[in-house]
Amino acid sequence: MQQAIAILDSGVGGLTVVKEVMRQLPREKVIYFGDTARTPYGPRSSEEVRKFTEQIVDFLIEFNPKMIVIACNTATAAALDYISAKVSIPVIGVIHPGARAAISATKTGHIGVIGTLGTIRSGAYASALKELSPYVEVISQACPEFVPIVEKGMFRSEEAKLVVQDSLQDIRNYPIDCLILGCTHYPFLADTIQEVMGHNVKLISSADETAREISTILYDKGQLARGVETPIHQFFCSGDPQIFKKIAQEWLGEQINLTPIVWQASTV
Amino acid sequence: MQQAIAILDSGVGGLTVVKEVMRQLPREKVIYFGDTARTPYGPRSSEEVRKFTEQIVDFLIEFNPKMIVIACNTATAAALDYISAKVSIPVIGVIHPGARAAISATKTGHIGVIGTLGTIRSGAYASALKELSPYVEVISQACPEFVPIVEKGMFRSEEAKLVVQDSLQDIRNYPIDCLILGCTHYPFLADTIQEVMGHNVKLISSADETAREISTILYDKGQLARGVETPIHQFFCSGDPQIFKKIAQEWLGEQINLTPIVWQASTV
Repeated sequence: MQQAIAILDSGVGGLTVVKEVMRQLPREKVIYFGDTARTPYGPRSSEEVRKFTEQIVDFLIEFNPKMIVIACNTATAAALDYISAKVSIPVIGVIHPGARAAISATKTGHIGVIGTLGTIRSGAYASALKELSPYVEVISQACPEFVPIVEKGMFRSEEAKLVVQDSLQDIRNYPIDCLILGCTHYPFLADTIQEVMGHNVKLISSADETAREISTILYDKGQLARGVETPIHQFFCSGDPQIFKKIAQEWLGEQINLTPIVWQASTV
Repeated sequence: MQQAIAILDSGVGGLTVVKEVMRQLPREKVIYFGDTARTPYGPRSSEEVRKFTEQIVDFLIEFNPKMIVIACNTATAAALDYISAKVSIPVIGVIHPGARAAISATKTGHIGVIGTLGTIRSGAYASALKELSPYVEVISQACPEFVPIVEKGMFRSEEAKLVVQDSLQDIRNYPIDCLILGCTHYPFLADTIQEVMGHNVKLISSADETAREISTILYDKGQLARGVETPIHQFFCSGDPQIFKKIAQEWLGEQINLTPIVWQASTV
């Protein structure tokens, strides 16, 4: 049986990675877990996010995937190293791919980053960027209102526009030439973000870039799928399956195979 | 001592990779070998190109590099698998990075590739693209006159313009939305190529994309340089050192440390 790429997120945000994996690597099978019962992760402590991430990885690892993708910037910042040390298959986060793409794209060296409170507070993008190049200037801004809007499926609403305008008021005054969408939920709002930032600022989607790096790493390890069959993907969510399904099918443009999951209390 | 990234090419083309490595990974030390005495590789048999590549790798491996980059598409097509099997450090070619970037960039799935006779004849890009996605359409075109123009340092001349116009006459009639510069010499001609192809066609530089993937792979292996010192790069060329130095310094925008090399006849 074809080994899948297991992708997880706090909710629907990681679907932006799934969509790009389906487009860039159409032979690959995907197993997805959206922790919609406990979204958003952004305001939580890093200990809690690490614990949640570990619980999801424990669930996904049972499917014998060939790779784990932490398609959530908050969880990447909190748990990537911990999970990488824990499992024996490759684990990819979404922060370094976005950082590398921004370093490749910038002409002026002035890079903006927007993300959740947890991601921005962790300083993970600034560290990743500075680790690659000491010459870049990084401006960061938390946008805590974006994830709830996307999780409600309201990303095309007038309210979404107003929230984006308001949240980006400060960062648009900086002379950046690219802006990292440092949260996998943000591509849902990309058109509005682009409009507010203006067309001289290149948006870097950590989701798109991660899909490309999944391709690079699987190729490097000789693990790209070679089959000719169309893979059947599997989706799991811990919250309301109706709203997850609606958002997923609209975003991916196809019907999905969804199994709701319940977190059960345990004293162990 | 800092382990270098060893980069090789048939001549000055791989300097386009060097420039991007210096920009995207300013902490990394580079050792470069340009086989200007035997350029161009494009019209040679793949056996001969494999032999030449092996000779250069034998030379470079003595410097104990952490990675070998075959920054020549012709040599990648002819020798990547062979060299990878021969040495114990990671070996990166320039074909897959360009293919992955094109798959990521294309909206219509119609991708053009230009390269040397050897690269196009090998079908290596079409294979790499189809291996990733069966849905892409690939149009290829050999441009054998480009490398000699670049090696002569005439890439900004009127003659260069005429040659580019003439060589791309056919491929510009296809409805492609991106064009892979499938030869590391071609970024020297990028402005002219962009002008001829029109601004609706996105140029994908296998050189830029390779630099980014060097970053991905070194990060994945925990081998990125961490020092704060400015690395001192070393360049070697087998042909006329004056013309190599002139082109390299103009392209890189800095003085280089060049040692000429002579291929010696041997009966062993």
